Amino acid sequence: MATGLMKTIGAGELSTADIDHEVTLAGWISRRRDHGGVIFVDLRDSTGIVQVVLNPEDAPASEEVLHGLRLEYCVQVIGTVRARPEGTTNDDLATGAVEVVASRLNVLSESDVLPFQLDDRVEVDEALRLQYRYLDMRRSRMSENLRARSQAIRAMRHVMDEEGFLEVETPTLIASTPEGARDMLVPSRLRKGNFYALPQSPQLFKQLLMIGGVERYYQVAKCYRDEDFRADRQIEFTQLDFEGSFWGQEDVLEVLDKVARRVVHDLRGTTIEGDFTRLTYAEAMSRYGSDKPDLRFGMELVDLSDVFASTGFKAFAGVLESGGAVQAINAGALGLARSGLDAQVSRAQELGAKGLVWMVVQEGGTVRSPVAKFLSDEEIQAIVVALDASEGDTLLIVADRLRVVRNVLGQLRLDLGKPDNNDELAFAFIVDFPVFEVDEDGKLSPAHHPFTSPANIEEMINTPETAISKSYDLVLNGTELGSGSVRIHDADVQAKVFEVMNISAEDAEHRFGWFLEALRYGTPPHAGFAIGIDRFVSILRNEPNIREIIPFPKTQTGADPLTGSPSRVEDDQLAELGIEIRTSVLDAWAEREEDSQQQ
Amino acid sequence: MATGLMKTIGAGELSTADIDHEVTLAGWISRRRDHGGVIFVDLRDSTGIVQVVLNPEDAPASEEVLHGLRLEYCVQVIGTVRARPEGTTNDDLATGAVEVVASRLNVLSESDVLPFQLDDRVEVDEALRLQYRYLDMRRSRMSENLRARSQAIRAMRHVMDEEGFLEVETPTLIASTPEGARDMLVPSRLRKGNFYALPQSPQLFKQLLMIGGVERYYQVAKCYRDEDFRADRQIEFTQLDFEGSFWGQEDVLEVLDKVARRVVHDLRGTTIEGDFTRLTYAEAMSRYGSDKPDLRFGMELVDLSDVFASTGFKAFAGVLESGGAVQAINAGALGLARSGLDAQVSRAQELGAKGLVWMVVQEGGTVRSPVAKFLSDEEIQAIVVALDASEGDTLLIVADRLRVVRNVLGQLRLDLGKPDNNDELAFAFIVDFPVFEVDEDGKLSPAHHPFTSPANIEEMINTPETAISKSYDLVLNGTELGSGSVRIHDADVQAKVFEVMNISAEDAEHRFGWFLEALRYGTPPHAGFAIGIDRFVSILRNEPNIREIIPFPKTQTGADPLTGSPSRVEDDQLAELGIEIRTSVLDAWAEREEDSQQQ
Repeated sequence: MATGLMKTIGAGELSTADIDHEVTLAGWISRRRDHGGVIFVDLRDSTGIVQVVLNPEDAPASEEVLHGLRLEYCVQVIGTVRARPEGTTNDDLATGAVEVVASRLNVLSESDVLPFQLDDRVEVDEALRLQYRYLDMRRSRMSENLRARSQAIRAMRHVMDEEGFLEVETPTLIASTPEGARDMLVPSRLRKGNFYALPQSPQLFKQLLMIGGVERYYQVAKCYRDEDFRADRQIEFTQLDFEGSFWGQEDVLEVLDKVARRVVHDLRGTTIEGDFTRLTYAEAMSRYGSDKPDLRFGMELVDLSDVFASTGFKAFAGVLESGGAVQAINAGALGLARSGLDAQVSRAQELGAKGLVWMVVQEGGTVRSPVAKFLSDEEIQAIVVALDASEGDTLLIVADRLRVVRNVLGQLRLDLGKPDNNDELAFAFIVDFPVFEVDEDGKLSPAHHPFTSPANIEEMINTPETAISKSYDLVLNGTELGSGSVRIHDADVQAKVFEVMNISAEDAEHRFGWFLEALRYGTPPHAGFAIGIDRFVSILRNEPNIREIIPFPKTQTGADPLTGSPSRVEDDQLAELGIEIRTSVLDAWAEREEDSQQQ
Repeated sequence: MATGLMKTIGAGELSTADIDHEVTLAGWISRRRDHGGVIFVDLRDSTGIVQVVLNPEDAPASEEVLHGLRLEYCVQVIGTVRARPEGTTNDDLATGAVEVVASRLNVLSESDVLPFQLDDRVEVDEALRLQYRYLDMRRSRMSENLRARSQAIRAMRHVMDEEGFLEVETPTLIASTPEGARDMLVPSRLRKGNFYALPQSPQLFKQLLMIGGVERYYQVAKCYRDEDFRADRQIEFTQLDFEGSFWGQEDVLEVLDKVARRVVHDLRGTTIEGDFTRLTYAEAMSRYGSDKPDLRFGMELVDLSDVFASTGFKAFAGVLESGGAVQAINAGALGLARSGLDAQVSRAQELGAKGLVWMVVQEGGTVRSPVAKFLSDEEIQAIVVALDASEGDTLLIVADRLRVVRNVLGQLRLDLGKPDNNDELAFAFIVDFPVFEVDEDGKLSPAHHPFTSPANIEEMINTPETAISKSYDLVLNGTELGSGSVRIHDADVQAKVFEVMNISAEDAEHRFGWFLEALRYGTPPHAGFAIGIDRFVSILRNEPNIREIIPFPKTQTGADPLTGSPSRVEDDQLAELGIEIRTSVLDAWAEREEDSQQQ
């Protein structure tokens, strides 16, 4: 580290090689022990911790200062490095073989009493941590997370540089489109009553860069989406965004593979062996009931429709007759009591199934199950064989519409099998996504943005419900890290896609006219991808959510407890922008205030 | 370059080493010559240009396709590299010794007729270039500028990495402060009637990072300022922002020096010799009449107050008596006729001077000047000596209040001496800026944000008008590239500074309470800087404004002619955000529309 003038070396950099050297340190007091006169202090800075010995006889500072030292005071120490006395070395500390005997101590800045202990072993309420994020950052968990995030981005950039990508910054004050219901808007001062939008992604701009001949673009891009907050979402988030011309899916996946390996290498120090698993969307859905399967464990979905093709068990027969499916997972030796098995049934119902049939395999291939008496021995035998079940295994069967079956079993599979940490990493490319999602009522809606290339435009027109698009995801341990696609590079195909998606030519022109025009000037074939950086790093760091990875995150309701944003602003500031707050909102405020006064 | 599956090598990468090799190229047709059957095409991609020979006899495509080829069609070419026939090599082209004889040509994408010629030698209206930025980018000027911008940022990051800085992303949806008149606001959907602000800089967040123990932070930060557009301003702009703890001014300047040298090296391929010039603010103002002096030429301001101490020339005597100054520059051998000299007088008046006295030095040390008759021989002699003038030199004298004198002479100096390109580079550190700026009426206003450390808090309190702060600028060729300061790290000093700046304790608490609290937990001494990336690159690229460096800039009125932003949005979209457009703005729109209908 470039240490500057106030310190000559980092606290954590000291070793026996420095013995007898005079050093100047600066950092924070993270621990303090008064041993009858001599004071021992743990001095922490960004490089680590070292023990400092403050002997009043050496007069490193006045008695008053020495005894006034408190936790998190920021101090400068001049002293001599020495080996710790025999028997007092600390193997838990990188610098545990040495200590610094202070000849001088300067208090650079005092500290108030802390709102919470910085000791990592102390559990602190997240709201409090966010309000005092700057103190939270002094704890090793957060400081290591910040470092990891920086390393991950650097690793990504290295690959991009090596592969000849150009870093290009796209604008963040862009045009809002009438569909942009989730756009965050920014009122313009110079053109009152008009608005910029913050980008949900640099999608169209990066396509313009391809049209502009850039060929290889990347950006660590800040994106914005004004949506209800879920555990792993933030209104502003950061993606590694890249795009290439004269490229197809394989070119993108090749780069993506390098990026993922490099990040893992730099953060974990390990090398991923072998190829990433590749599954089609259809395969992932059928085997795991999910388009982002966690591949670290089996428990695959097994179709039992054949087994029950002519069953006498009416519940299953009825489902099969009406076109539904009967599928199951072998959850292994769960060893659950009746109450535990019933809880699985409730969970399945909560997930949307009408019911769940459980079976516990007994000695000799028989099963214990509420429905055992309705099934023939052959059927039970066939189930056991199909699920490769052994004595003690718990089998969970769902009979319902296929989408329900997959959703419920896919989720139960995760409930029962997902490892509780991310020490093991299982990457997967999911390819051949459908063009349209089919909802409960059979209604089609586009699965991706309308610039995604269909595998075949005729197929998209003729059999939209089964048509495949040239899109792909990268999945890690059951989490989607990002997605991408081959884009449409032909204005006529683009027009047809809008048509199939029920976007009228007029509407398309109104919303994307400038882009459709751009497509007409020799657009190269191109494809790209975007990876959510915080999500990726949070998995590698074994963190439960992305707020642990983001230096200054918002809460789930979009607030920052530290600075108080979002907040009210002065009326004249709004007037300058040509806007005002709606009467209904003001009324709601007034009502709330009245309520709180009455209480 | 990772070429992908559709091409095996870049057009510009071909050389005689590739002769007899089969290659697959992909790019755009940038030139086309039909030589009686055989068609010669210049194929351009992001690596350069190569000549492709399309001989209909080889049937690389149908006659119809070959004759239908137009400029900017996007094509793929498979062919064999050969040496160009003797006498047809093109030394202007890096690949001019070879050409590719096509065995196959595929049109990947056709192009409409272009709105302007992509030939770099053709001057195109900027509005049109911005509307079709993606075509503008295919011209070498823009594509080289994009590349240079990417290189500059990479160079900066290399230095930051080498110096142990951590890249940390600070939020862009932050709290607006009541003073934030230039804040861009973002209405919150979840908390209707509340607003986020876009950051004018990451200032307080980077200071929080220092409090959080990060010690070395950097970020390529997007910043926003909603101001009237000047030639070199954009509402969104990008800075290299960095900050260090246990740091003072010298530590910052040392890193800054490395950053600047590295960028110049990587973009220009040259090494800056010697140290950067260092001037105090006072020195810069007195010698150059500017706090961002262009040091590539002399023409320094010379004070003549002593010369005229007891002059009989009433105009000068009066100014000196009332506490003003008489100063001059030696503009050298301008060779201006009377009309040219008069133009200088007009210019000086336009700049705020009451007048300007010119003198042209004649043989024997006499001068030609409208005021020569009012001056004694001794005075003229003293002027000539003071300005080190030779025969033919033009001397320009201004007598006025000191601030006017400096402003006018500083500007005339630039008018007459500033080189018209940036081939030569003159960096300067300007240090010791005053705490306060003194306006025309002697009123004090803070010269920097209120977190800037004064050199001495007592001096700031007792003699605010002359007090110095620990702030500094980096200047290149007369342009301020950026500024920084040592920050206040003591809550008590911060409180006093607010007081001297007439910010009441209550107001400070309301605006920055959360930050003032943070200062109380062991804040380390810290200092930092921010460099405007686009400004720096535009100078190194010899570009007249930053719009030439920004991939998708806004016009001077904040509009994007390409996408049409900012734009109107649907009422229900605004309703969702809890805001509406003010009646007065709607009325103004209606009026304008009525007017345009009547015309």
